Amino acid sequence: MSQPKQVRLVEVGPRDGLQNEQQPISVADKVRLVDDLSAAGLSNIEVGSFVSPKWVPQMAGSAEVFAQIQRKAGVTYAALTPNMKGLEAAAEAGVKEVAVFGAASEAFSQKNINCSIAESLARFAPLMEAAREHDIRVRGYVSCVLGCPYEGEVSPAKVAEVARELYAMGCYEVSLGDTIGTGTPGKTRTLFDTVAREVPRERLAGHFHDTYGQALANIYASLLEGIAVFDSSVAGLGGCPYAKGASGNVASEDVLYMFNGLDIATGIDLDALIAAGQRISQLLGRANGSRVARARLAG
Amino acid sequence: MSQPKQVRLVEVGPRDGLQNEQQPISVADKVRLVDDLSAAGLSNIEVGSFVSPKWVPQMAGSAEVFAQIQRKAGVTYAALTPNMKGLEAAAEAGVKEVAVFGAASEAFSQKNINCSIAESLARFAPLMEAAREHDIRVRGYVSCVLGCPYEGEVSPAKVAEVARELYAMGCYEVSLGDTIGTGTPGKTRTLFDTVAREVPRERLAGHFHDTYGQALANIYASLLEGIAVFDSSVAGLGGCPYAKGASGNVASEDVLYMFNGLDIATGIDLDALIAAGQRISQLLGRANGSRVARARLAG
Repeated sequence: MSQPKQVRLVEVGPRDGLQNEQQPISVADKVRLVDDLSAAGLSNIEVGSFVSPKWVPQMAGSAEVFAQIQRKAGVTYAALTPNMKGLEAAAEAGVKEVAVFGAASEAFSQKNINCSIAESLARFAPLMEAAREHDIRVRGYVSCVLGCPYEGEVSPAKVAEVARELYAMGCYEVSLGDTIGTGTPGKTRTLFDTVAREVPRERLAGHFHDTYGQALANIYASLLEGIAVFDSSVAGLGGCPYAKGASGNVASEDVLYMFNGLDIATGIDLDALIAAGQRISQLLGRANGSRVARARLAG
Repeated sequence: MSQPKQVRLVEVGPRDGLQNEQQPISVADKVRLVDDLSAAGLSNIEVGSFVSPKWVPQMAGSAEVFAQIQRKAGVTYAALTPNMKGLEAAAEAGVKEVAVFGAASEAFSQKNINCSIAESLARFAPLMEAAREHDIRVRGYVSCVLGCPYEGEVSPAKVAEVARELYAMGCYEVSLGDTIGTGTPGKTRTLFDTVAREVPRERLAGHFHDTYGQALANIYASLLEGIAVFDSSVAGLGGCPYAKGASGNVASEDVLYMFNGLDIATGIDLDALIAAGQRISQLLGRANGSRVARARLAG
C-alpha cells in the first residue's frame, strides 16, 4: 500500500466544532469563519446542521449562513441533516451535500438517538430517496468506530457492517469516526483493513479525535492503509462531550502541517488556516487547540 | 521491519522537564517525583544534571536527590554531565549512568555551547575516558536532528555523522532529539534509516517534542523503523524554550497509552504514571501536559 500523494481535508469546524462549543455565535461570525476557510483553500466545509435550534442552539441560523457565504467555485458546502425534516430544509436552502450519522455501537445509538442501529439506518432510507430526488449528495458518518463511551471496545466487523449499509444506501463516502479518541495506530490499521473489504478504500474517510493525543498517529497509520480523506476542525474547535475540558476534534492546522511534511498535496495554505483558527478562537474566548498555531503564534 | 514487541521508555521529566520549568522545586519534591516514577515501573529515569546552579538553578541539589531517592533494583538513574567537572561530581554522587549532548547543527552548537560540533565532541573524549575509569555508562544525545531554530533544515547525513562519533567514542546508546518538534513521520523514517547505516538500530533512541503535535506520529513512524527506545517526560514537563507557551517534551502518559494500544510491553503502570504527573503538575501550578491524563482525570 503506497502512501497517497494527495489528500482531501474535510473541515468540520463550523458544524461539528461549533456545535460542541458552549457559546453560540452569530450568523455573521459563522459566515466569516466559513469564508475564511474557503479562502484558505479548503475544498470541503461542513457549514451547519438542519436540526431544531431547541436541541442544538449553536446550529441556529444554518439556512441564513448558507445564504450569506461567498460561494467559491469547486468548494463543497455541506450540512448535517439527521432526519427528513432537516433534509427538506437543507434542500430549500440550496444545499448540495448533506451528511447522516450512524453508530457502530448499540448502546451509543440508543443513548444518542433513542433507537437501534438497524432502526436508525432504516430511517435514512426515505431521506436517501429524497436526497436523490433533490440531486443532493449524501456522506455517511459512523461514530464510535474505535471505542464507545458506554460499551468500551467496538469490533471492526460491526463497523464494517454499518459502513457497508450506508454505502449500499447511496452514501458516496463513509467517514469512520473515533468519537471518543481512544483509538491507537495498530487498531486503526486493522479497522480500515477490515472495513475496506466491504466499502472501496477510496470511499472511506477517517475522522479522529485527539482526546488521548493519538489523532495524528492514527491519521499517519490510516495513510499507510491508503486512506486519503480526513475530517478535521480548525483550531481543534469542539471539545469532547464525554470528558469535559479534554480535546475533541483533531486540529486541521496540525493535520495539514503533517501532510506538508510528508509532501502530500492538499491545496490548503497553512498560514491562512492558522489565521482563521486564531480569529475564531479569540471570538470564542478559548485557547487555540492547534499546537502548530500555538507554536507559530508564540514564535 | 517488524514493529518491536517491547520498548524501553527513558523518563526525562525530572531533568529535561524540570530544567525547562520556570520554577525550581525542592530536593524533597524531586525525590518524590523520581520515586513516584520508579514505583510506576519506569526502568530508566534521568534524575538531574551536574552543572553550576548559577547557570541552571532548577538543577541545584542533584547530588542530594541522588542520595535520597529510594533506589529500586533494575532501575537506571542517570544524570546529565556537560563537562568533566560534572562527571567527577556525578561519580562522587555514585551515579552509574551519565549523558552528554552533541548538536547536529553548527549554529545551534555555537549558540548553545559556544563551540563547533567537532570541538564539542573533542571535549567529550577525556570525559568518556574518566567515565570508563569510574565504570559509568554514557548515553549520547544529538539535538536538532529534524530541524534547528537557527539553521532550519538539518540533513540526516549530518545527524548520522555526529551519532557515529558519539557511538565510536563509547556511548552505549545515542538518542536523536527533535529539539524544536518540527519533524514529521516521513522525515523521521528517513532519518533513522540513514543513521542506522552508521549506528546499530538497537543502539538508537528517539526523543520527540510535541511542539507541533507531531511527536506520537513520529514515534509510531520510528517503531516502523525498528526503533525501540524512546525518551519522554511525565505530564509533558518542560516547555519549549524556542516558543514560549508551546509544548515541549512529549508526555510519557500519551506515549505509554499508544504503546498499550499497540500491545507493546513496557512494564509501566499507566494509572500510577498519571498520578505522578498530576502530582507534579499541581506542585508546579501548571496545566497537565498529557492529553491522556486530562481525559482520564476529566472523565
